[in-house]
Amino acid sequence: MKKNITTPSILPGFMELLPPDQMLFNKMLDTIKSTYEKFGFIPLDTPVIEKSEILLAKSGGETEKQIYRFNKGDNDLSLRFDLTVPLARYVAQHYNDLTFPFRRYHIGKVYRGERPQKGRFREFYQCDIDIVGNEKLSVINDAEILSVIYSTFKALGFDDFTIRINNRKVLNGFFESLGIEDKAEVLRIVDKLEKIGVDKVREELAAAGVDGDKAERILEFISIKGNYAEVLNRLKEMQTDSSMFAEGLDELEKVCGYISSFGIPESNFALDLTIARGLDYYTGTIYETILNQYPGIGSVCSGGRYDNLAENYTDKKLPGVGISIGLTRLFYQLREAGLLGASKKATPTDLLVIPMQDTMNHALDIATKMRGAGIATEVYFNEGKMGKKFSYADKLGIPYVVVVGEDEVSSGKYKLKNMSSGEEVALSLDEVIARIKESL
Amino acid sequence: MKKNITTPSILPGFMELLPPDQMLFNKMLDTIKSTYEKFGFIPLDTPVIEKSEILLAKSGGETEKQIYRFNKGDNDLSLRFDLTVPLARYVAQHYNDLTFPFRRYHIGKVYRGERPQKGRFREFYQCDIDIVGNEKLSVINDAEILSVIYSTFKALGFDDFTIRINNRKVLNGFFESLGIEDKAEVLRIVDKLEKIGVDKVREELAAAGVDGDKAERILEFISIKGNYAEVLNRLKEMQTDSSMFAEGLDELEKVCGYISSFGIPESNFALDLTIARGLDYYTGTIYETILNQYPGIGSVCSGGRYDNLAENYTDKKLPGVGISIGLTRLFYQLREAGLLGASKKATPTDLLVIPMQDTMNHALDIATKMRGAGIATEVYFNEGKMGKKFSYADKLGIPYVVVVGEDEVSSGKYKLKNMSSGEEVALSLDEVIARIKESL
Repeated sequence: MKKNITTPSILPGFMELLPPDQMLFNKMLDTIKSTYEKFGFIPLDTPVIEKSEILLAKSGGETEKQIYRFNKGDNDLSLRFDLTVPLARYVAQHYNDLTFPFRRYHIGKVYRGERPQKGRFREFYQCDIDIVGNEKLSVINDAEILSVIYSTFKALGFDDFTIRINNRKVLNGFFESLGIEDKAEVLRIVDKLEKIGVDKVREELAAAGVDGDKAERILEFISIKGNYAEVLNRLKEMQTDSSMFAEGLDELEKVCGYISSFGIPESNFALDLTIARGLDYYTGTIYETILNQYPGIGSVCSGGRYDNLAENYTDKKLPGVGISIGLTRLFYQLREAGLLGASKKATPTDLLVIPMQDTMNHALDIATKMRGAGIATEVYFNEGKMGKKFSYADKLGIPYVVVVGEDEVSSGKYKLKNMSSGEEVALSLDEVIARIKESL
Repeated sequence: MKKNITTPSILPGFMELLPPDQMLFNKMLDTIKSTYEKFGFIPLDTPVIEKSEILLAKSGGETEKQIYRFNKGDNDLSLRFDLTVPLARYVAQHYNDLTFPFRRYHIGKVYRGERPQKGRFREFYQCDIDIVGNEKLSVINDAEILSVIYSTFKALGFDDFTIRINNRKVLNGFFESLGIEDKAEVLRIVDKLEKIGVDKVREELAAAGVDGDKAERILEFISIKGNYAEVLNRLKEMQTDSSMFAEGLDELEKVCGYISSFGIPESNFALDLTIARGLDYYTGTIYETILNQYPGIGSVCSGGRYDNLAENYTDKKLPGVGISIGLTRLFYQLREAGLLGASKKATPTDLLVIPMQDTMNHALDIATKMRGAGIATEVYFNEGKMGKKFSYADKLGIPYVVVVGEDEVSSGKYKLKNMSSGEEVALSLDEVIARIKESL
């Protein structure tokens, strides 16, 4: 009977990895997770499917178009498109059971039915942290977020990156002092500066009804450059009558004042007045992170401060600050840029035990002992030629192999082969353990 | 302006945890993950959304009814309802890039739109391992799976559990020898023995057209009890003309023969002829795992051997063996049974640093040093009374607190408070590190 064969494939816009890449991806994920935990962020896990009325409580044009929404029974369901809306719902729902400030991290998949294109995914991991206060939240938390970003990218193996910050109140306060009505629209235009350039920004500002003189002052403002102390000085010299501007400037100064206490080198930090972030719920500090040698990748870690996280779900005022790393996209970009290296390791296994003749039981004992010592160990069960067995280890990038023959069993000395150097040494089992643990 | 408030809630049938439970859940998840990795299983991650034609290639009544299926653009999409079908698709699709036997684990959420009821979830974690061979796969792999189950439940802190095995060929061979036509139907009925009892099974066998004499022989067969050696002896004494039976018996003997080599105590193991497993793709060894003091929970880890994993997606013959732990349900049941204990720890934080007066910069330095030593550390940023700061540590179950006043800074001796014993000792920072690391 001939079966019907369905050609195996996945949907466009979804990432699926082969074992060596999956190992690298998981390593990045684990690094992010353990860094977040070292700062005392609490893990959270919320449903991927939520009520549409919850996820779309604050509906926006793009979100509504991209969301995966469907019915099952009587329920109107949607897949989450970020981890921030579920956090807002969670904090409002469980308010009485939480301790504030509530520091949580969440690493999970989110869904956006975007038009598929290179480097864009419909299912992707976000790695978020947020600190949510009850009624108020000191600006020192904004500075700590910088420290988390710095530690995370250092732990991921990056050195040459810049965390750029700005403050929405400074931008909006400045626009206000110019008498601009639609500050949000001007913000959106300014935010595109890096992408579209000065001339286009000037054009768009004109189209938005901003008169030429004001447009030039805006362009002059966002062209202020220098180290953070210089930029702060320039801002302080400006004469504006906006209290919002003054408040934002004060916040910026405080955040900058903490960076050395938080151990962030000046070379990894910049106060950049051009960054604005698209999302409209930010109200204070905003963050972007650039890999300096790969600016084309764009920001690899972004976020900001918001006054009122859960206003759609509760009367409580819950200000917060947070950031997100879009790991799926970052991984894809790093791979495209050739930055992941060519890892051969396609398995967690550190040691392959190959039994010979009738030594299977002994091989199994060895494996149990190795696992007990924390060494990931596999026993090769298939019959066949020795070359094929070594080739299995080689293909999977298993670093060590031990062959268990009758001589080894009787002598208690086992030949441990280092697969990358080819070196072979006769060792007792305890020495095997020590040797492998040392190398990991 | 009064906002519209949407009452925050999640859908019925979805599990969401508060921090202390989430910490426990993640600990179980990590334990399972690290045990799977110690056996050299490769992590895999596949999309939650797949093409409906893929997930439903082998359609079954229940699956089709429960699946979350919807359209987006021109695509007919479904959420995965298990991790086995995606594995089959993955192995067929990436066949040329994989090394066989392919040992993979996958921990992820799956979706079934079941009628919600106590202990049943529409979104739940499965923790799967499978070993997939190319053309053939030695039965010793079936024995190794027992070892993984044993190690996993031991690592989770269980002692009193029984891994029960049976073999589909033994059952089907026996039914064949009785001349039973619809073996699958009889299997389904026998599988319900524990749930519905002997009388109901007898009734259902009669309804299925199995004559009384044969029904009694089936009931007699599945009532064979004893330790595995005794059961094997009884099976060997039986006279059947079924080669399928003989083959299954041979497999059972081999698997049982390995259990001591794999370090599985006899007290955690049983050969139980009553287990059959509902799923029709199993063809050899089948597994169930029972927590002996909570048999009502049912099997907490089940699986089996299948001849041909990916027959819907490829002509290649890919036999395999695997198991699954339904962690969401297990966690729920353990919690209901009061078996999780009352963990107070609601954060990964091990140390809370409380600055006093003007010691913030010093407190931040200490935190950086502690994190560098691998200790999850938080600095308390809010202003307020000392009592409130300690209460924060207490509510989150943070085990250690250090208060940094000016005296501490000048003397270099810090009072470390153990929050559960109340004990306070003055230590240098290196001693603080040593003390905390020792206790973790």
